[in-house]
Amino acid sequence: MKSEGILMVLSGPSGAGKGTVCRALLEKQPGIHLSISATTRKPRAGEVDGVNYFFVSREKFQQMIDAGELLEWAEVYGNYYGTPLKTVEDALARGEDVLLEIDVQGGLQVKKKFPSAVLVFLLPPSRAALAERLTGRGTEPVEEIQRRLHWANTELEFLFRYDYVVINRHVEEAVAALQSILVAEKCRPQRIKMDESWGNLMDFKGNSW
Amino acid sequence: MKSEGILMVLSGPSGAGKGTVCRALLEKQPGIHLSISATTRKPRAGEVDGVNYFFVSREKFQQMIDAGELLEWAEVYGNYYGTPLKTVEDALARGEDVLLEIDVQGGLQVKKKFPSAVLVFLLPPSRAALAERLTGRGTEPVEEIQRRLHWANTELEFLFRYDYVVINRHVEEAVAALQSILVAEKCRPQRIKMDESWGNLMDFKGNSW
Repeated sequence: MKSEGILMVLSGPSGAGKGTVCRALLEKQPGIHLSISATTRKPRAGEVDGVNYFFVSREKFQQMIDAGELLEWAEVYGNYYGTPLKTVEDALARGEDVLLEIDVQGGLQVKKKFPSAVLVFLLPPSRAALAERLTGRGTEPVEEIQRRLHWANTELEFLFRYDYVVINRHVEEAVAALQSILVAEKCRPQRIKMDESWGNLMDFKGNSW
Repeated sequence: MKSEGILMVLSGPSGAGKGTVCRALLEKQPGIHLSISATTRKPRAGEVDGVNYFFVSREKFQQMIDAGELLEWAEVYGNYYGTPLKTVEDALARGEDVLLEIDVQGGLQVKKKFPSAVLVFLLPPSRAALAERLTGRGTEPVEEIQRRLHWANTELEFLFRYDYVVINRHVEEAVAALQSILVAEKCRPQRIKMDESWGNLMDFKGNSW
């Protein structure tokens, strides 16, 4: 018996620690395929095209939308973000697990197209910690921080439409929870493919053994 | 934030290794409360009343049914098996996880009364291995073995109504899967209780932080 690859979506308010948790998970399970998003936002210091994001123009992004090349896309803080469909489909077809770090709008779009996708909402340990993390990074202007606080409020309303909620108290603990979710989801009967050691279960009835 | 205790039901064909897996899980996580069933079947060599089962008469069992003292009950191979409701409720109220090793009929009864229960179906690695285990124990008469093979076929039809399927290739692997399922289920948004560090999430909107 073999399980299919899992399409796991990780969302949560900016400042929840999604990036750190994703990197730590990939270090522990290098077999997971991390999807790289396309975006129209400007690269931050140190960000590399094709590694952190595919940085594209608005015109190019619109072309990708029109050609149906995006699994999901969304506008956040005035910038566009989207997931190239083909690389996700290819990785799943190879039986790999795929990790998407995208916002809640994108997550719900993915669930519509891939009902078997697993949506995980990452939360900081408390409201105070979230506010601290959002304001404490020190790299963003005040306006940006206020926009993020507002957007975090909006995102939290989607929490109960997600499959799982993981509290990021410690990175290791959050990563262990994500690994457990992957193991558990592979045990879902809908995902289990019976191989020749079982044959088709429907043949069981009246089978002579 | 705290999660509720989980009511986990472990079922599967006789010979799948449920007893061994249960014992190994409880060794790893002694905090789990193992529910002890009441039964009308005769004790096997070495079985102790109040440890393996509560061994009761048919009259006593009928009284328990009539008084609504059983969470579920079923007839298997002509004997009655049932789960005392009160001890399960008490353990869950204390926040403990509860493990029930019961048959598929019982599992589905539990799910009806406790929709938040987690149903796990334990499978041996292959049909051949199941047949081997059922016939190889050497402690049961041929008739009993044939009844079990027949009943195993029936049980397997319920596999897709269970929440999870765990293949018992190695006990350690099966136990790790059960532990992952417990961790994952504790991350279900429906089970998460927000404490004062978050307040009520509904207060988020428009909150001044």
